Amino acid sequence: MLVRDVGEARLIELLSEVVDVEATDQPDAHRFPLRLGIGDDAAAWQGPATTMVATADALVEGVHFHLDRIDWPDLGWKALAVNLSDVAAMGCMPLYSTVTLGLRGDLPVDGIEAMYRGMAEISREFGGRVVGGDVVRSATMFIGVAMYGAAMPREGNGDTPNEPLLTRTAAAAGDVIAVTGSFGCSAGGLYSLATKLAKRPGNEATAHLVEAHNRPVPRVSAGIQLARRGVKTAIDISDGLVADLGKLCKASGVSAVVDADDLPVDDHLRQAFPDRWLPLALAGGEDYELLFTAAPALMAELHQALDVRTTTIGEVAEGPPQVTVLDENGAPIDVEHLRWDHFADDA
Amino acid sequence: MLVRDVGEARLIELLSEVVDVEATDQPDAHRFPLRLGIGDDAAAWQGPATTMVATADALVEGVHFHLDRIDWPDLGWKALAVNLSDVAAMGCMPLYSTVTLGLRGDLPVDGIEAMYRGMAEISREFGGRVVGGDVVRSATMFIGVAMYGAAMPREGNGDTPNEPLLTRTAAAAGDVIAVTGSFGCSAGGLYSLATKLAKRPGNEATAHLVEAHNRPVPRVSAGIQLARRGVKTAIDISDGLVADLGKLCKASGVSAVVDADDLPVDDHLRQAFPDRWLPLALAGGEDYELLFTAAPALMAELHQALDVRTTTIGEVAEGPPQVTVLDENGAPIDVEHLRWDHFADDA
Repeated sequence: MLVRDVGEARLIELLSEVVDVEATDQPDAHRFPLRLGIGDDAAAWQGPATTMVATADALVEGVHFHLDRIDWPDLGWKALAVNLSDVAAMGCMPLYSTVTLGLRGDLPVDGIEAMYRGMAEISREFGGRVVGGDVVRSATMFIGVAMYGAAMPREGNGDTPNEPLLTRTAAAAGDVIAVTGSFGCSAGGLYSLATKLAKRPGNEATAHLVEAHNRPVPRVSAGIQLARRGVKTAIDISDGLVADLGKLCKASGVSAVVDADDLPVDDHLRQAFPDRWLPLALAGGEDYELLFTAAPALMAELHQALDVRTTTIGEVAEGPPQVTVLDENGAPIDVEHLRWDHFADDA
Repeated sequence: MLVRDVGEARLIELLSEVVDVEATDQPDAHRFPLRLGIGDDAAAWQGPATTMVATADALVEGVHFHLDRIDWPDLGWKALAVNLSDVAAMGCMPLYSTVTLGLRGDLPVDGIEAMYRGMAEISREFGGRVVGGDVVRSATMFIGVAMYGAAMPREGNGDTPNEPLLTRTAAAAGDVIAVTGSFGCSAGGLYSLATKLAKRPGNEATAHLVEAHNRPVPRVSAGIQLARRGVKTAIDISDGLVADLGKLCKASGVSAVVDADDLPVDDHLRQAFPDRWLPLALAGGEDYELLFTAAPALMAELHQALDVRTTTIGEVAEGPPQVTVLDENGAPIDVEHLRWDHFADDA
C-alpha cells in the first residue's frame, strides 16, 4: 500500500500507534509527564521549573540518505539520533520530539511504519519520544525532527535556578580536549555504501562501518554526566572533527592543537581503509561523538568516571580561532582542504 | 547572491542577525527568558513549572506555496502563523521556534533574509521567536517550523499544577459552537492567485483575499482568553471548517450541526465569488480562525468578553461523529464532496 492510497488522516493514525510506546527508562523522565500526545493541535507535557532546550535537524532524500542504502528502521533511528546527539551535546536529558514528514505519494506505507518503529526503538533506549508532528506532501522526501530536552541539576546540588549547560563558548586556554568513542567509521560506511563496497558479502569490517553510518549511537548519558560534573564546553561531531572543533574555537575565541596520533580510530576502519583512515577520521563527520574540553585535573577525573570510552586528543590555546593537527613527528597536517559545505556541490 | 554562493555557515549567520529581535511584548514572556539563541547545539530557555506544548507544521514548495504567488516576507510570516495558530488553539502562549530550511542552491540569499524578516515581524506581534534550527540542501524547498508554548494559569487562580489546555476531546452535547473572525477569504485568495485573478490591478476585494491567504492572522490572544475563561475545547481551522469540525467531533465522540446562514463570511468574498462563497467558506481551509465550544451561559459571556469578533454557528449533539450543515431552509447541504486530502492529487 502506498502513501497516496491511505490518505493523511489514516497514515497519522497508523504512525501514532507505532510511536505510542512506553516512556523511556531514563532517570527523571517521570518528572516531565506527557499530558497529550499525537492527535490534537499540539502535544503537551508537564514540566517543573528548569532550563529547556530545543534543537532541530532534518534528513533529506538524495542529500542525507538514499533509500537504497539504508533500511527504513535505521532511517527512523538516525533521524532521531542526530537530534538526540544535539541534546546530549548540551548536557541535557532528551524529552519529546515532533516529526515533520515530507512524503512522496509513491512511498510504501509499511516502510514509513517501519521507520517509526526505528524511532520508537531509539526513544526507548535514549529518550526523545515522538509526541506529534506533521505529514505533508513533498516531491523530495524529508524527515524533520525537532526535539526538546531539559537541563539536569548538578550532582548533590538540588534544583538550582540555572542548571548547567554544555555550550560552545566556554573553552579556555589550558583546557584539555577529549572525545568519546572513535572517529571515521561513519564516513567509512558512507564511502562503502556509495562505492558498493558494502554489497560484498562477508566483509565484517565494512558491515561495522555501515552500521556506524546508518545507526549512530547518541552519547546521551555521557553528555548529562559531563554537565553534572562541571564541564562547561562540548559539541557533537556531525560535520567532522576539524570542522566542528573549528566552530567551537570560533565560538570560544581560542585555538586548538590536536595530535593525530592520539585520535581514537577503530580497527575496522584501519582495516577497510589502510591508506585513508586518517582523513576519514579527521574530516568524515556523522560519528555523533562528543568533543569536550576541561581543565586537566577535571579531565583526569572524567576519564575515570564516565561510562563510555574517552580519549584526550589535544589542548586549547590562546590565539585566533584555528585548528592545528600535528602528525606523529609534530609537523602540521594540511586540514583546510578537508572541509566541506552542504551547498558546495549544488551547482 | 545565491544560497550556493554563501555557504551554510554564513547563511546561518545572516539569518541569525535577522531574527535576533527583541522578545515579544506578550505579557508573561519575561517568565521564560532565553538563555541561548542561534549558534549552539540547541537553544535554551529558563521556564517555570508549567505545562509546555509543542507543535510542528511545514510549508512545501509546489504544495503549500509557489514563489511566484507570495512575497518572501509573507512566506516567513505564514510559516510561523500556521504554528502560532496551533499554539493558540491549545490556549497557550507561544514562546520559541526552531526553523528547518530545506533550500535549493539557486535561491536568492536576500529572499531568504526577507523571509526571516517576515518571521521576526510576526514574532514581535504574536510571540514564537525563532531561536534555532537547521539549514539543509533539498531539491524541493521547504520550511519546517516547530514551536513551543506554555499554558497560562487560570484568571485569579494563581499558578496551578495543571494549567488549562484547549483540547479537541472535551466537546459535549448541548455545547454551542462558535468561531472567531470569518471564513473563506484565504481559499478565495488561493483561487484568485491560481487563476491570475489577483493580477488584475485595482481589485480591492481580491487584494483582501490574497492578503488573507498569504498573511493569516493567528488568534493567539483569543486562544489564551478562551482557556483562562474556562473553555475546554478548540481547534484551529486549517483544512476547512467542515473537515476540522469533523476531527473535533471524532475526538470528542459527538456530532455537530452548523447553520450555513450563521457563518461569518466577509463581504469581499461574497463580492469576488458571488456564486461560490459558501463552499469556499465551508471547505476552503487556511483561514486559521479558532472554532470552540462551550455551554450556552459561558458562550454568552465569551461573546462579550473577547477582543475579537466571535459568532455562534451551531451546536454539539449526541450521536456518531458527523457534521451536518443546514441551509437557510433547514435542509442539509451535501458536504462530503467538499473534503480533500493532502495526498489525493499526487498520482
